[in-house]
Amino acid sequence: MLTADRISLNTATVKEQWTLADCIDGCVRHGFGGISPWRDKLQEMGVDAAAKAIRDAGLGVSGLCRGGWYTAEGALTQAVIDDNHRAVDEAAAIGAECLVMVVGGLPEGSKDIRGAREIVRDGLGKTLEHGRKAGVPIAIEPLHPMYAADRAVVSTMGQALDLCDELGDGIGVAMDVYHVWWDPELSAQIKRAGKSRMLAYHICDWLNPTKDLLTDRGMMGDGVIDIAGIRAEVEAIGFNGLNEVEIFSAETWWKADPDAVMKTIIERAAIC
Amino acid sequence: MLTADRISLNTATVKEQWTLADCIDGCVRHGFGGISPWRDKLQEMGVDAAAKAIRDAGLGVSGLCRGGWYTAEGALTQAVIDDNHRAVDEAAAIGAECLVMVVGGLPEGSKDIRGAREIVRDGLGKTLEHGRKAGVPIAIEPLHPMYAADRAVVSTMGQALDLCDELGDGIGVAMDVYHVWWDPELSAQIKRAGKSRMLAYHICDWLNPTKDLLTDRGMMGDGVIDIAGIRAEVEAIGFNGLNEVEIFSAETWWKADPDAVMKTIIERAAIC
Repeated sequence: MLTADRISLNTATVKEQWTLADCIDGCVRHGFGGISPWRDKLQEMGVDAAAKAIRDAGLGVSGLCRGGWYTAEGALTQAVIDDNHRAVDEAAAIGAECLVMVVGGLPEGSKDIRGAREIVRDGLGKTLEHGRKAGVPIAIEPLHPMYAADRAVVSTMGQALDLCDELGDGIGVAMDVYHVWWDPELSAQIKRAGKSRMLAYHICDWLNPTKDLLTDRGMMGDGVIDIAGIRAEVEAIGFNGLNEVEIFSAETWWKADPDAVMKTIIERAAIC
Repeated sequence: MLTADRISLNTATVKEQWTLADCIDGCVRHGFGGISPWRDKLQEMGVDAAAKAIRDAGLGVSGLCRGGWYTAEGALTQAVIDDNHRAVDEAAAIGAECLVMVVGGLPEGSKDIRGAREIVRDGLGKTLEHGRKAGVPIAIEPLHPMYAADRAVVSTMGQALDLCDELGDGIGVAMDVYHVWWDPELSAQIKRAGKSRMLAYHICDWLNPTKDLLTDRGMMGDGVIDIAGIRAEVEAIGFNGLNEVEIFSAETWWKADPDAVMKTIIERAAIC
């Protein structure tokens, strides 16, 4: 059974209700083991103030969301590279286990997914150089294939691990069950990742039906994903990090009382 | 350049406007090379009457949509097997190139995707036996991973071809660009399929943004898929069948004048 001290709150889960300061207090109040901020919340609070507050609260930091978006300007520009360097520095400042990368979709007007993947590979290489210096592991998050056009041209664990193999040490994956649960290769790719490449593990659920491609993710237990089964596979390779809860839910959880959301997460952890 | 005689109309594209008889007339009027009926339209017209009308019209039949749905009753029941046998017989009656299989999603209340895949494999084996006798090739259609819960636990070309390898002759894939365009393995799996396993080729487009998981598919050219590039790969393995246009579009094409839809398809074929 997953207990609260093994859970990390991704701030996106209560993004409409809580600031980062609220999230830190909430994690302490509910006994969560850690937190994973998004950069907008982090910058709003101030990186130094946030780093101190998280440290003082004794929370782990399962990741910083997010770097990446390499294809945003149609080519790998210095502005994109620089922003990712800043993300690495922020991750270092808050002691994050990794910087989570949402790599970017197709450039505006483009149908060239291969070209987009080349931009992503080159961009990851640049960020990785800086991540190694700063001691921040870079975690590629493969996103569900339904985001290939607009968010991430890296869609599977296998593809992300191929990139890791090409790029070397200091890079791995952030695996969210929402994005990968359907993949017939999932078990094989979890084993292939091994402990060294499995940098983060995110949970939520796939609702059936799903009413919106982005903001209709489910609380664990409300959908069809065998979360306990996947967790067993992830722990079988030696992963012992936090289980990060990241739920985008415009109609349900973003409208709920945030303390009730936290309580529900702890209740549902029993089936994760 | 793709010309009208290389195009097949999947009746789902104008399902809200036309009966099957209307579709047959429309295909003739616009010079389409073929048609691919859905079973509900076929049964509404009557299989024998439809077979005669299609034959008299001189249209090819790129497929019959659809068999499958093996998981509908939570286990492989005789009712499901029998319905698929009838689908094979109907495909034979209209001279379809293949019976397209939408294999089914997770059974009601289930989180056991592996178990669902076993039901699907066993069901395909049963249908294949009958297909071989009837001379009807069975075409597994891998559906986009966003349908894994509710429509198809076969999500990639690689997975479908693994099933084909397991089941033997008389079975292959129906590849719709909508479902597979994002797949980093796509080129390799098209080559792996080869002409003998590539039983049908469907086109439409992925809109960005996509507003609905099921009914917001795009007309070729309105989205982000490199359709011409994929067609080149499909033809490079020797596929010389019809390009079947299947568009689920509640807000646009299902509301349009169906002759205008047909004309638009022909215009857009120039970029396919």
